[in-house]
Amino acid sequence: MKLSEKSQLCSLSPMRKFTPYAMAAEAAGKKIYKLNIGQPDIETPPEFFEAVRGFSQKVLAYANSQGTEFMLDAVVDYYHRIGVDYSKEDILITTGGSEALQILFLCILDPGSEVIVPEPFYSSYNTFIKASGGVIRPMATIPEEDYNYAKPEALEALINEKTRAIAIINPHNPTGNVLTRDELRSIADVAKKHDLYLICDEVYREFVYDTDDVLCAGSMRDVDENVVVIDSVSKRFSACGARIGMLISRNKALMAEALKFCQGRLCTTTLEQVGAAALYRVGPEYFEKVRDEYRLRRDLCYAKLSAIPGVVCAKPMGAFYVMAKLPIDNADTFMKWMLTDFEDHGETVMCSPAAGFYATPGRGTNEIRIAYVLKEEDLSRALDLLALGIERYNNR
Amino acid sequence: MKLSEKSQLCSLSPMRKFTPYAMAAEAAGKKIYKLNIGQPDIETPPEFFEAVRGFSQKVLAYANSQGTEFMLDAVVDYYHRIGVDYSKEDILITTGGSEALQILFLCILDPGSEVIVPEPFYSSYNTFIKASGGVIRPMATIPEEDYNYAKPEALEALINEKTRAIAIINPHNPTGNVLTRDELRSIADVAKKHDLYLICDEVYREFVYDTDDVLCAGSMRDVDENVVVIDSVSKRFSACGARIGMLISRNKALMAEALKFCQGRLCTTTLEQVGAAALYRVGPEYFEKVRDEYRLRRDLCYAKLSAIPGVVCAKPMGAFYVMAKLPIDNADTFMKWMLTDFEDHGETVMCSPAAGFYATPGRGTNEIRIAYVLKEEDLSRALDLLALGIERYNNR
Repeated sequence: MKLSEKSQLCSLSPMRKFTPYAMAAEAAGKKIYKLNIGQPDIETPPEFFEAVRGFSQKVLAYANSQGTEFMLDAVVDYYHRIGVDYSKEDILITTGGSEALQILFLCILDPGSEVIVPEPFYSSYNTFIKASGGVIRPMATIPEEDYNYAKPEALEALINEKTRAIAIINPHNPTGNVLTRDELRSIADVAKKHDLYLICDEVYREFVYDTDDVLCAGSMRDVDENVVVIDSVSKRFSACGARIGMLISRNKALMAEALKFCQGRLCTTTLEQVGAAALYRVGPEYFEKVRDEYRLRRDLCYAKLSAIPGVVCAKPMGAFYVMAKLPIDNADTFMKWMLTDFEDHGETVMCSPAAGFYATPGRGTNEIRIAYVLKEEDLSRALDLLALGIERYNNR
Repeated sequence: MKLSEKSQLCSLSPMRKFTPYAMAAEAAGKKIYKLNIGQPDIETPPEFFEAVRGFSQKVLAYANSQGTEFMLDAVVDYYHRIGVDYSKEDILITTGGSEALQILFLCILDPGSEVIVPEPFYSSYNTFIKASGGVIRPMATIPEEDYNYAKPEALEALINEKTRAIAIINPHNPTGNVLTRDELRSIADVAKKHDLYLICDEVYREFVYDTDDVLCAGSMRDVDENVVVIDSVSKRFSACGARIGMLISRNKALMAEALKFCQGRLCTTTLEQVGAAALYRVGPEYFEKVRDEYRLRRDLCYAKLSAIPGVVCAKPMGAFYVMAKLPIDNADTFMKWMLTDFEDHGETVMCSPAAGFYATPGRGTNEIRIAYVLKEEDLSRALDLLALGIERYNNR
């Protein structure tokens, strides 16, 4: 029984592949501080659950393939409020930002097509791009430069006849890098010059901690044909389990193509769109409060990490992740050991080994990604456990 | 800006491509009887909504990539009750049967790989197979033989070195064909002999009207490595909008591969799994009642269709669709005309033109698929409108 080449090129998720070990550890009574997945402990706004409970139709019917009218309206309104002018025709509601990326790559990649992606990058890009037969052309970034990738010449040097797109995540998962307005503009100019799609994953848009000098890619109206925005309610409203995302572009040919795949899979969940539309009614005070909380966690996380002997990391400017190089041989071995062999007072910590966030073989093997998604007290304990784990692992 | 070859090979859904015309007609005050989509008017069991309303967690968190434990338990229990022995490891919960098919084809198809599919077939197979670079090798069936495709020699004649799978839908969408136990066995023998996956889409399992001589593919234990079952709560519980499906197989290598894609897209909706698990607690009396209702509609639909001069159709044995050849030039033109130009007392009817259910060019151009998903009175009126429409269309 044959398996496909593309699926054999894919890997389990670095965030999720140790789940079986975690479940075994938990079953044995161990408490695990989970910093491996971007699953915040921040409460989902109650508006979501209220709207869902208020759903009174007797038949849970299919939604429209492009998304329900009320959900599309909610997204258009949200963008208007942040100064970006989209119409409903520019938006397709998807099953998480994940499906938006899957559909997009199906639309634009042929076997061997290349996508330029600054690395490290959110690991699922690997799966989505390979599933479409595409290849990631990584652009290396380093912590010493805050993982900056706004280098037009370096990006241009990676372009060849197979290049279809430049994909950026802003604010960045997993590095926390945030582009200034000028930096984003400089990258858009490269995409425009070379007639490439500019994929802008902005799911962490509201989580920027030290500056207001940021720009939504949808504001740059001279690159309407190039820009594709990936968005989601998962992080914005701490509603990861809703699986509501969106593919947004003013490129009509692309959106017509994407609708084929949307119709093929019929629709996104009806009830979750009811809940998600209600989320967009929460006001700016919600974002301020959440941003303050994450800023606090960011500061704590960075301070404690930096204090561990031998750790190298850059202070993240946005999102809720930090990459860290650890003074260990191999992060995969280490993180598995932390689940199976380590404990302190019955507790341990789970992070994501970072090799899966790189496309270049050999990079990231002694790095981890930490999601600072737990409240201060838990985060502090988790980082102490990490420090203790590193020490014991190296003396084992 | 380039678009991919595979996406350009795909088409809009024959069930959904006329939605813009339908919305315009409705906006103009026209009432449309919708027989185009398998969206039943049967009420979703209230257990779904009760379970969802009872969800009391404050954070709507990600689920496990393979599905929540309680959802997997519910599915295992359901299969035990119908005499099929699956364990949780054999099951991946997906976003509808649609995503189960998408993931499956990603796992087993390389560019140019072939899947043998009896035609007509559920049109989304086109999109899912092409998205993976695969090709449909159709096996023609005809209404005069009740669309029967249990012909081992004919199936074998289509096998070549590129063939990876035989995909069957049982009970069948759109023809209503149902395989006897012996017929299913004869097809399984072909798959076994040639080392092919046997993809069995059994989402209409409970909707069989004239016989008990049916078999779940999962019961044939000598073909554990070959059989992949596609399942869903959409039709079974009239819960199409929940988007909860499943990929089921005892082929461990395949399931390990599929988990990569499941982890890539993170998970299926958390809340809908809470609701869907509750659906599996409804008893056999629910299925009996629903089956009786569909049988009545089937009889009515077939009787009224057969009475229209020039219509050719076969009496469906299961599912809730019937294919019909109409005495018209082109079903696409006709169905669009029914939305834009036809009305009787402010009403019209919408069906699916059937060319999209065929892979062979030219087949199905004067056929439609009717989903008998409306209550008797509405269905009767809808079929009268269809008859009147055909008459007026031909005299226009």
